Amino acid sequence: MERHFDQELAELKDRLLTMASHAESAVTRSVKALVERDDELARQVKADDDVIDRFEIELDELAISLLAKAPLASDLRLVAAAMKISHDLERVGDEATKMARRALDLNQEPPLKPRVDLPLLATRSLEMLRAALDAFVNGDTDRARDVIGRDQEVDALNKQIHRELADGMIGKPDTIARSLNLMVISKSLERIADHATNIAEEVVYLYEGRDIRHVGKAQPNTEAQNP
Amino acid sequence: MERHFDQELAELKDRLLTMASHAESAVTRSVKALVERDDELARQVKADDDVIDRFEIELDELAISLLAKAPLASDLRLVAAAMKISHDLERVGDEATKMARRALDLNQEPPLKPRVDLPLLATRSLEMLRAALDAFVNGDTDRARDVIGRDQEVDALNKQIHRELADGMIGKPDTIARSLNLMVISKSLERIADHATNIAEEVVYLYEGRDIRHVGKAQPNTEAQNP
Repeated sequence: MERHFDQELAELKDRLLTMASHAESAVTRSVKALVERDDELARQVKADDDVIDRFEIELDELAISLLAKAPLASDLRLVAAAMKISHDLERVGDEATKMARRALDLNQEPPLKPRVDLPLLATRSLEMLRAALDAFVNGDTDRARDVIGRDQEVDALNKQIHRELADGMIGKPDTIARSLNLMVISKSLERIADHATNIAEEVVYLYEGRDIRHVGKAQPNTEAQNP
Repeated sequence: MERHFDQELAELKDRLLTMASHAESAVTRSVKALVERDDELARQVKADDDVIDRFEIELDELAISLLAKAPLASDLRLVAAAMKISHDLERVGDEATKMARRALDLNQEPPLKPRVDLPLLATRSLEMLRAALDAFVNGDTDRARDVIGRDQEVDALNKQIHRELADGMIGKPDTIARSLNLMVISKSLERIADHATNIAEEVVYLYEGRDIRHVGKAQPNTEAQNP
């Protein structure tokens, strides 16, 4: 009986990893659609959001059926955590869709060449997301803590991009709309790192029983003033 | 045994309602801090976010203990839904904190008097939040559907505010920083309505067994192009 349950738990983790790779791919493609001005790719990202949404629905169903037969309290916690993580991944998919829409907007106008580095921000956020998922699947709280520590770097990067774009608007009213679109994309990438941080905090809570989900907020420079 | 479980379920709902009233109050006060340029109030909102965070942690604990003894699959679903709703409310608290920070920023500069109506947007979003919670507690899916239908109005209002602020920046570089802060506040209020919509969709799913969480997205004018 319990062995069968363990198999189903493994399946739940597997599906979560597959969902994560879809979400990650959506983010990567939306940034590529922006950088390479590829409308077709941006439209694909929007269309594929349904796939990620369906993953969440299926994962919820699987999780509810597991909750009904979980033999241990620790299993309940694991399944509940999986549901929360799947919700975070669904939101990552939403951010990718939002970025794809902004890319489509931006591609209709002449390219704006600000010095901001959105692909770097994307890389950092996706590294965090991947590490947080690994930490969940392997019960690796050290790895999870490392993810949490990296959120500040991403926040700072987003803040810097935001400042450069705001400065670039001054005296150039025709760049305002494009700069605002780029700010939204930067903010979306920063939110993906936030989701990764949520997942990592959930992992620490799950495996160490200590709730650190809201500790980071007490530090004044973590998110204060952040765009 | 089951009667005792029902009492605990009722307690879970009660705590969720109390948490919701804290989150609602935080939003109301952050908007008041902005409109009345009240730094002290803004600082209070930031400090009170810990209270809302602690509610989520306590609710999770209560929910996990209920999952372990839920007699029916429908109870499992209800408790799982409560956990998701509590997470949405925690995010509402985060948005209030973010708005309070922006209010503090804005209060350091001369007042910008754009024609945008942020208090109206706040009222609409909070009405949706309150109705979604009522729908959950009373199992009222009609009410939940009504909430979902109102999200478009809030999206449109945010979009309009965003457009007016962007237009107002043109030729007035000294208003850019303040306009961007107001845009962030408008977006935060719109996100609160999104959380209300999430909760309402969860309620329909819970009581009718139909997943409509991602149906709205298929409609082209729901969120497309929305700031």
